[in-house]
Amino acid sequence: MDIKAIVERNDTIPGRIFDLVVQMLIVLSIVTFSVETLPDLDTGTRELLEITEVIIVIIFTLEYLLRLYVAEKKLSYVLSFYGVVDLIAILPFYISSGVDLQSVRIFRMLRFFRAIKLFRYNKAMGRFLRAFAIIKEEIILFTVVTAMLLYLSAVGIYFFENEAQPEAFKSIFHSLWWAVATLTTVGYGDIYPVTIGGRIFTFVILMIGLGIIAVPAGLLASALSRVSMEDHEEK
Amino acid sequence: MDIKAIVERNDTIPGRIFDLVVQMLIVLSIVTFSVETLPDLDTGTRELLEITEVIIVIIFTLEYLLRLYVAEKKLSYVLSFYGVVDLIAILPFYISSGVDLQSVRIFRMLRFFRAIKLFRYNKAMGRFLRAFAIIKEEIILFTVVTAMLLYLSAVGIYFFENEAQPEAFKSIFHSLWWAVATLTTVGYGDIYPVTIGGRIFTFVILMIGLGIIAVPAGLLASALSRVSMEDHEEK
Amino acid sequence: MDIKAIVERNDTIPGRIFDLVVQMLIVLSIVTFSVETLPDLDTGTRELLEITEVIIVIIFTLEYLLRLYVAEKKLSYVLSFYGVVDLIAILPFYISSGVDLQSVRIFRMLRFFRAIKLFRYNKAMGRFLRAFAIIKEEIILFTVVTAMLLYLSAVGIYFFENEAQPEAFKSIFHSLWWAVATLTTVGYGDIYPVTIGGRIFTFVILMIGLGIIAVPAGLLASALSRVSMEDHEEK
Amino acid sequence: MDIKAIVERNDTIPGRIFDLVVQMLIVLSIVTFSVETLPDLDTGTRELLEITEVIIVIIFTLEYLLRLYVAEKKLSYVLSFYGVVDLIAILPFYISSGVDLQSVRIFRMLRFFRAIKLFRYNKAMGRFLRAFAIIKEEIILFTVVTAMLLYLSAVGIYFFENEAQPEAFKSIFHSLWWAVATLTTVGYGDIYPVTIGGRIFTFVILMIGLGIIAVPAGLLASALSRVSMEDHEEK
Repeated sequence: MDIKAIVERNDTIPGRIFDLVVQMLIVLSIVTFSVETLPDLDTGTRELLEITEVIIVIIFTLEYLLRLYVAEKKLSYVLSFYGVVDLIAILPFYISSGVDLQSVRIFRMLRFFRAIKLFRYNKAMGRFLRAFAIIKEEIILFTVVTAMLLYLSAVGIYFFENEAQPEAFKSIFHSLWWAVATLTTVGYGDIYPVTIGGRIFTFVILMIGLGIIAVPAGLLASALSRVSMEDHEEK
Repeated sequence: MDIKAIVERNDTIPGRIFDLVVQMLIVLSIVTFSVETLPDLDTGTRELLEITEVIIVIIFTLEYLLRLYVAEKKLSYVLSFYGVVDLIAILPFYISSGVDLQSVRIFRMLRFFRAIKLFRYNKAMGRFLRAFAIIKEEIILFTVVTAMLLYLSAVGIYFFENEAQPEAFKSIFHSLWWAVATLTTVGYGDIYPVTIGGRIFTFVILMIGLGIIAVPAGLLASALSRVSMEDHEEK
Repeated sequence: MDIKAIVERNDTIPGRIFDLVVQMLIVLSIVTFSVETLPDLDTGTRELLEITEVIIVIIFTLEYLLRLYVAEKKLSYVLSFYGVVDLIAILPFYISSGVDLQSVRIFRMLRFFRAIKLFRYNKAMGRFLRAFAIIKEEIILFTVVTAMLLYLSAVGIYFFENEAQPEAFKSIFHSLWWAVATLTTVGYGDIYPVTIGGRIFTFVILMIGLGIIAVPAGLLASALSRVSMEDHEEK
Repeated sequence: MDIKAIVERNDTIPGRIFDLVVQMLIVLSIVTFSVETLPDLDTGTRELLEITEVIIVIIFTLEYLLRLYVAEKKLSYVLSFYGVVDLIAILPFYISSGVDLQSVRIFRMLRFFRAIKLFRYNKAMGRFLRAFAIIKEEIILFTVVTAMLLYLSAVGIYFFENEAQPEAFKSIFHSLWWAVATLTTVGYGDIYPVTIGGRIFTFVILMIGLGIIAVPAGLLASALSRVSMEDHEEK
């Protein structure tokens, strides 16, 4: 069993271990990234995080070189999606000397997508793609209609509420924020109608909106359950 | 290829370009309309918006005249849905000399409906209409039941909360606003029960309400996925 | 065509008109009932509402007597569901002389159920009952599980938050109010966790809860769409 | 009919009564547990609750000994799930002399699971398990994707809002709380974006999130309704 198989495939035990280690490091890298955003860390913790950071980047660099080494077409790997992601994950460290440019490190998040590989051999993922292909057009249609509804809601509430609450409903853009928070039923409560007209309008738009916004999720669920059912019946 | 085909159909390249230009202008017109509602615009931006406005109306006017010119039955176009919409979109400008009557310009929003034409040849739209036809009666039934539930919730909470919160639950109409915000699960937090009775009532009404209000969206999703699935199987 | 047919059936034109008039009066009665809860009504409006009230009760009384007159088994009508409802709708007026006991008048709301008669001949209602019969056991199961989940959520959050917010999460009963508002995703914002433990617990309980609470509505929608689809295919 | 059948089975009348009594006591135990958390109880009520507590524990102890007595393999019962649960439910009382260690008594809640036995012979439970088995992989997939989406939302909003609201969006962990409350559409309103970038980001993440988070519940509902439908058709 050669190195190539270990690095590029995950149908053997060493290949799986290699993949798992890389994924663990990605998760560790995410955890340290998150912890570093905490504002009141003491010096000891900060130093520990920095050391972890350096070690992770070194391992990621070695992994990158290894992947480059085993790749049959070097350039093809460098320019591939994963090749670019792997490079972006380590590059900021070398450019910024590992101290500054913290915000650039967010690109390391892209390595998250390596995790998607896990799904590649997953049957559920295959069924999801089949179900999605069937209802793709419906989802596009409902997304467009949702966008239109959001805009019309914003315009409507602007005309009802602008006079009564000139600060909250300052412009159609401010009203759009209300429309998003309301039609998704999040309802933070930072902005809401107070006039009778605005409240009746909200009621009408919600009655229509609830029947539209929840449809894509329902469509996906329904199609998925059907595809899944068919697969299980075939067995 | 004559002008008529370009203006009225979109199965040829020039026809598609004409449609696209009109739709782009509609979107541009919507954007300028929205930007103008911003309260602290400087004079330069205001002037730019006014010029854009004049240009858009001129092009829309030319388009209207063109459509009138190519129409076989002139009167039939003028009185058609799109004919009226196209006229309403430009009329306020000429009446108000493009400065006042800003609020009338909202009717230009109706031109939005021209965008619906995009859906006319769309298969998803066809499937949506078929699915909707199948569950139309169910949706009417649930809409009626939802309206009844909202009213009964308002009456109930009024009797529980009116004494404890005479300002928030001032009348059944004020309670209705609570019922809308609660049963749609928006929950702004501007008005909510504080008495034990009111909270138990809210719990009971939510348990029933959640099982009713979400049904139309689920019905639509379920029927759509079924129709969509059948179409794909036939192929 | 005799009076009996007009009063008791709605498959003829006079029968339909009679039913419609009664239903209009029920709606009018509901509107006046709601308007009367408004706190700052002037004397003129109050008088108008009182007169409307008297007229409505007189017509309802006549209707009750008429229904009693045409009923073959008088006692059977008086003791039937609609007989009791019709009596309750007018009785408070005579007992309280139409001025006091406003709260008793809420029972008139029960006449709302007369409106359900509208659904009796409705195909959608029939399909709803068939769909409901199929998934009845599932709905009971999920209601029980939801109740258990609500209680466990309340206990959990009580232990996490009671110390940090002794006023908001005073007891398990107060925590139950939080559980209801959170798991239904209403989220008024009057009470929410602030400790790290409480927030992680909220996350976990929401992930589980969302997958349980929305199920009955989805079940109903799915079963209804299926029954509806079968009906349309048979045609 | 011997004691063994009464204690261990519930297909006979005495067996059902025994089960029912145990379940009633579990519910009573839960009620007293909840009432005790009320902060302003008078001494009389406290004493009554303590006495009830002692009686319940004595009966539970007798039940435990009885189950041990009728069990063919004593050790097997002691080490079984229900055996451990039954012991945990009474142990804290004897260790703490029934006064202190109130928080340990929460383990009695585990006896709740005895109630699950009710579902064992339930057809709906059987169908639920069948439906769940079919869509298990999809639910795992969506749970993983939801977790990833929550984290990415937290990182995104942190970069948009941290500067404008350094207190509310203090770190990625604080942002995660926002992500949970927003993507589940609970929207308490204790923390929400105020910058334009943050609001647009919220909109985008909600459009994607709504189409993902609601899917597991929809899947379960759809699969359940299908399994249920098949069962009813077979009859």
